[in-house]
Amino acid sequence: MKDTGQTASASRPRISTKPPGGMRDFLPADLARRAHVIDTIRTVYRRYGFVELETPSIENLSTLVGKYGEEGDQLLYRLLRRRDSLTRALDEAASQQRSPTRDELATEGLRYDLTVPLARVIAQHGELPRYFKRFQIQPVWRADRPGRGRFREFYQCDVDITGTTSLVADAEVITAVTMVLHELGFKDFSLLLNHRQLLREMIRAAGINDAAEGSALIAVDKFDKIGREGVEQELGKRGISADPARRLLDLICDQPDASNEARLDYLAQQIDSAQGRKAITELGELCQLCAQTAASSALKVEARLARGLGYYTGPIFEIVVPDLAGSLGGGGRYDQLVGMFGKREVAAVGFSLGLERILTVMTERTMFPDLQVGPDLVLCWMGIPGTDMLRVANELRGEGVRVETFPEPAKLKKQLQYAANPAVSARYAGILGTQELADGEITLKHLASGKQTRLSLTEAAQVIREQRALS
Amino acid sequence: MKDTGQTASASRPRISTKPPGGMRDFLPADLARRAHVIDTIRTVYRRYGFVELETPSIENLSTLVGKYGEEGDQLLYRLLRRRDSLTRALDEAASQQRSPTRDELATEGLRYDLTVPLARVIAQHGELPRYFKRFQIQPVWRADRPGRGRFREFYQCDVDITGTTSLVADAEVITAVTMVLHELGFKDFSLLLNHRQLLREMIRAAGINDAAEGSALIAVDKFDKIGREGVEQELGKRGISADPARRLLDLICDQPDASNEARLDYLAQQIDSAQGRKAITELGELCQLCAQTAASSALKVEARLARGLGYYTGPIFEIVVPDLAGSLGGGGRYDQLVGMFGKREVAAVGFSLGLERILTVMTERTMFPDLQVGPDLVLCWMGIPGTDMLRVANELRGEGVRVETFPEPAKLKKQLQYAANPAVSARYAGILGTQELADGEITLKHLASGKQTRLSLTEAAQVIREQRALS
Repeated sequence: MKDTGQTASASRPRISTKPPGGMRDFLPADLARRAHVIDTIRTVYRRYGFVELETPSIENLSTLVGKYGEEGDQLLYRLLRRRDSLTRALDEAASQQRSPTRDELATEGLRYDLTVPLARVIAQHGELPRYFKRFQIQPVWRADRPGRGRFREFYQCDVDITGTTSLVADAEVITAVTMVLHELGFKDFSLLLNHRQLLREMIRAAGINDAAEGSALIAVDKFDKIGREGVEQELGKRGISADPARRLLDLICDQPDASNEARLDYLAQQIDSAQGRKAITELGELCQLCAQTAASSALKVEARLARGLGYYTGPIFEIVVPDLAGSLGGGGRYDQLVGMFGKREVAAVGFSLGLERILTVMTERTMFPDLQVGPDLVLCWMGIPGTDMLRVANELRGEGVRVETFPEPAKLKKQLQYAANPAVSARYAGILGTQELADGEITLKHLASGKQTRLSLTEAAQVIREQRALS
Repeated sequence: MKDTGQTASASRPRISTKPPGGMRDFLPADLARRAHVIDTIRTVYRRYGFVELETPSIENLSTLVGKYGEEGDQLLYRLLRRRDSLTRALDEAASQQRSPTRDELATEGLRYDLTVPLARVIAQHGELPRYFKRFQIQPVWRADRPGRGRFREFYQCDVDITGTTSLVADAEVITAVTMVLHELGFKDFSLLLNHRQLLREMIRAAGINDAAEGSALIAVDKFDKIGREGVEQELGKRGISADPARRLLDLICDQPDASNEARLDYLAQQIDSAQGRKAITELGELCQLCAQTAASSALKVEARLARGLGYYTGPIFEIVVPDLAGSLGGGGRYDQLVGMFGKREVAAVGFSLGLERILTVMTERTMFPDLQVGPDLVLCWMGIPGTDMLRVANELRGEGVRVETFPEPAKLKKQLQYAANPAVSARYAGILGTQELADGEITLKHLASGKQTRLSLTEAAQVIREQRALS
């Protein structure tokens, strides 16, 4: 064996070793935190009867384009055509003495969200159950300007129930999401609740033209960020006159600080249309369905909640915490989107949790339990054959201990220094010399306290397992 | 509530709902099988002291290009530049009255393997431990011609130890991979073992020019697919004359059908160079290090093993099973690759398991345990308020039962039919009527046998948990 694995080499042309803008490497400690959140989401959603789906990273552009608005189309990652296919596209343009178009250069793109793929899957796979309760936890890609907390590759955690307009489905989605947050340790979140149809009726009641409804929704959606005055200006900019704008803001702001029932009663007094009454009744039913679930205490009817996306048709939801501008996630009922690729409409309700935002808040609040990143034990050895050292390591592994072996012959001091290096993130060092080997024992050193004990392998494994269960 | 979620809609322009060529949707049953294998790999690698790394899907092309040979460069997925950046590239080419080049159209691409990103991460993150024992399980993308069992998006499961030339690392990697296969239920695999330096010496001893070494390696690598005669022809095609070709084939084929020790002894008689002796000694040491591990019985010295990739420098490995042409995975020592982005060379040894091939063999051999895909129980209800039904569902969930609720009021027969639908993949139906609700019980129906029992919620949960533990 050689004594070193790292030797100076001739200088080479240097290439940047940073990931591209908006992309991230996840080192083991990062990944442990991400896995903690993802595993919790997966466990809870399974308990709520959801099954997991994964779709490919690459979709045909015909599937993606036109589904996310003009801005979304700009943010799609497109894959350059290859070989002959690219050559033909370039030759075609050259023969016409023009530049190739974007559509000629690319026919496939990267997944932009998890909802459009769900819609495609439902149209494609007729064997799925009538009520498809699926969750999906995968990265999506958006060529957005990278910035603080804004990435170009990030995970979405979606949960949806398709095939039914029953509000039981809305209640199940809301409750499942609530349970995820409970299990992660969140105690102070609110689950805001509104109804897209009620918003429409409020916009109408304020005297805003139906044609300006979309603009009004987008303006109201910014309330949290820009406040009442900001929304008023925004409405003005979007061509809505001052009086209707003020009436709309009165409607969405003047709710009594009271129970959801009282808030719904108040809204019922303001909005007198059949559609409005129907929406208010649905919200009441939904609150009632959740009355004996964990969601009940978090639910808050909030007439200001708009959810920018155009596709919602019924109840809409959003989860907020006091110390984060924006939301941890949101969702709602969208009965006309999932059927877009098929022959029939498919009702649906769902919720999307933002993994990156949950991680941000949990990190700031130090909400993570003691997550094990490294091995339980680094096995340090001296004066014995590697064969025996590996046998002992494997015996410990057989007892469930996570063992890293020091790979080279070295002085014990050097080996123990390595074991104690915070980057290794081990809890124990195991010392294995000729005497320990002869006795079928190891010396177990607790790295934080420095305490050493000679133990049989079985005893050592038990100590380590017990310590792990405590943390 | 409305009574249906699926209504006929006006006809729309139809878009193909298949995933693009070489891409796959993973429905819940597929995903359960994939998760079973991935979870096993993750558990075993952790037990061997490896920590997990993830790198971004998108890398700079400067990181990727030139690392995978000319063919690899062709198979890279490149991302089309966006907005102004694309416009500028097109304008530049147009102003010179030529077509834009591929390099002008794209500066980023999709991850092609997990080794180059590892090398980049090691150069970038100085805080990593000196011996970085990492595993990584992520998709990679290759724009290969799709075909039976060949996909354009597929998972690699890599495990590597960097920073040491010690053969202890090689032994650990081999043993960890062996344990993965054991835990998955494989019993009849061989772990073929050779040494790149020994192969070089055999090529030299056969009288083949050093310059033709790469060609000879590529030809020998095809032995399993095309046999001895095929390799002989292939060597001829690559300009290696008949006599040296025959001598090389004699050398790599004429091993005694005996112990690894005897095979190494035989090779030592054929190859007399210092480099060859050193390689044979290393292989003997490696076999000795593994002697008391699970890998020992699977290890087989095989002079024909070549591993096509150019970067190996020492021992090379491959796992084969009798009923699959090709391998389940392979690896080896590559002491000059991981350092390519940094200032120093970094020794490394690793192994890459092919998830898709493992899944293929396990599916053909029906090696999967009874994996739970759907919920434990579909809760069917009648004559009671949805609020109460949801409370009962959540009580069962609190006891660890995976509960899907039938979302709409419907006749019991229809609900039970849904619960029994194989696509739902449930084991029990729970029936909740007025009487059960009043008694705090449910009627538990085992769907396979049709057997029904009235039980308290706690009892029902216990029955379900016990049945799950049995399967």
